[in-house]
Amino acid sequence: MTTRDDFTLAQRLADAAGEAIRPFFRARYDTEFKADTSPVTEADRAAEAAIRAILEKERPGDGIIGEEYGAIREDAERIWILDPIDGTKSFIAGRPIFGTLIALTQAGWPTIGIIDQPIARERWAGMVGQPTTFNGQPVTTRQCRALDEAILATTGPQYFNGCTGEHFAILAGQCRDTIWGGDCYNYGLLASGHVDIVVEAGLKLHDIAALVPVVEGAGGRMCDWSGEPIDSDGDGRIIAVGDAARVDDVLEALAHGHDSHE
Amino acid sequence: MTTRDDFTLAQRLADAAGEAIRPFFRARYDTEFKADTSPVTEADRAAEAAIRAILEKERPGDGIIGEEYGAIREDAERIWILDPIDGTKSFIAGRPIFGTLIALTQAGWPTIGIIDQPIARERWAGMVGQPTTFNGQPVTTRQCRALDEAILATTGPQYFNGCTGEHFAILAGQCRDTIWGGDCYNYGLLASGHVDIVVEAGLKLHDIAALVPVVEGAGGRMCDWSGEPIDSDGDGRIIAVGDAARVDDVLEALAHGHDSHE
Repeated sequence: MTTRDDFTLAQRLADAAGEAIRPFFRARYDTEFKADTSPVTEADRAAEAAIRAILEKERPGDGIIGEEYGAIREDAERIWILDPIDGTKSFIAGRPIFGTLIALTQAGWPTIGIIDQPIARERWAGMVGQPTTFNGQPVTTRQCRALDEAILATTGPQYFNGCTGEHFAILAGQCRDTIWGGDCYNYGLLASGHVDIVVEAGLKLHDIAALVPVVEGAGGRMCDWSGEPIDSDGDGRIIAVGDAARVDDVLEALAHGHDSHE
Repeated sequence: MTTRDDFTLAQRLADAAGEAIRPFFRARYDTEFKADTSPVTEADRAAEAAIRAILEKERPGDGIIGEEYGAIREDAERIWILDPIDGTKSFIAGRPIFGTLIALTQAGWPTIGIIDQPIARERWAGMVGQPTTFNGQPVTTRQCRALDEAILATTGPQYFNGCTGEHFAILAGQCRDTIWGGDCYNYGLLASGHVDIVVEAGLKLHDIAALVPVVEGAGGRMCDWSGEPIDSDGDGRIIAVGDAARVDDVLEALAHGHDSHE
């Protein structure tokens, strides 16, 4: 069971991560840090350690999979999946559009997701069966009548490899605007109705798990590039749409890229 | 002459622009606006009108070139150059990394530059002969010993056309990290020592003028892709480096892209 208590706990975990991260943001590498470490590594570790300390005390039977400190009790029914700093490049460059990702999965299915931006103090929180909130207020995705009205977001061209870059370019050519950069923050903006489509490749489980409850609880939909539900065996290519009616258009555009390449 | 009074006035202009812009940020297009206008257009116009009203009263003899309302007294010795929202795509998508750009040029040379982020309330302010400030505190660029230590930033791959994209890719391949998105905000982060290099193409005078005093007053250097100083007749391809010792490396990488293409 995933309960309201778990949801409250997830928010407490995000609070603790934010406390740990804030002192390292915009720390000067050249004057404040030596070459053998970096502010982002320190912040990542401090945040994950803070979250794990709370979980070990409050939910000692749950599994944990964290980007920094690995997996424990991986065969548990309930697993917390942690990415303390998603968007490390943005963090390093001093841009407040990275995020802390916290998910709870139950039998492999994400039931709680938090996207937290600790500098701007912005938090999207989703739980299966509940409306997604932004800083405590319910949010919904917006209607998008056609791709040529859509704002498409993705983190950077370097994350597409092989022919995925061509697929993406064909989709981008059909959309109104493409914005670059942003990592998990783009999915929050989609949940709040400011972005219509996010398409990415090369993501890992800890990048994805928290996004699903946030996006779907706001009325959006997530799937992989074949239109299948996101699961832990996926290839890291994901699609999020604010308006579920646009999924087929996105899949078709990405498939055309595929056809023309082969 | 550009005076301290002009610098104070420039800050007042940025305050007025921010007041005008904030109500439109993250306004919902689908529910709050009709199809014949948009929050970003409204915000752009309201901000430029607010700035021009102050300038007409306080500096009636100065010229003004604005992105929204065009040019007046273009032959004046002193010209204010305005881009109320640089980074309209970020604004539209709800990302607080766009900026208001305000410059004063004297005989064609930028003497004052402001990069203002009105949502996060972050402001970089530069004036020839003065140290650049971030929210009132002096900032400096950082040392960068080699390209493979550099964080490179640019707004998006779609702004490179023809072979400029290949040139950029060669440079990016030599740098430690490339971050995408950000528009004028990247130059502020460079001035504060978080980003090492910004390379762009396709910029216009109102995108560029304010950047020069901010970057150079923090110890950085700006030039075009040929290494020449930025002027109003340029082709919109610009380079900013935090550490002036890296200019030649950047020029060489971009030139290699050029050679290999031809």
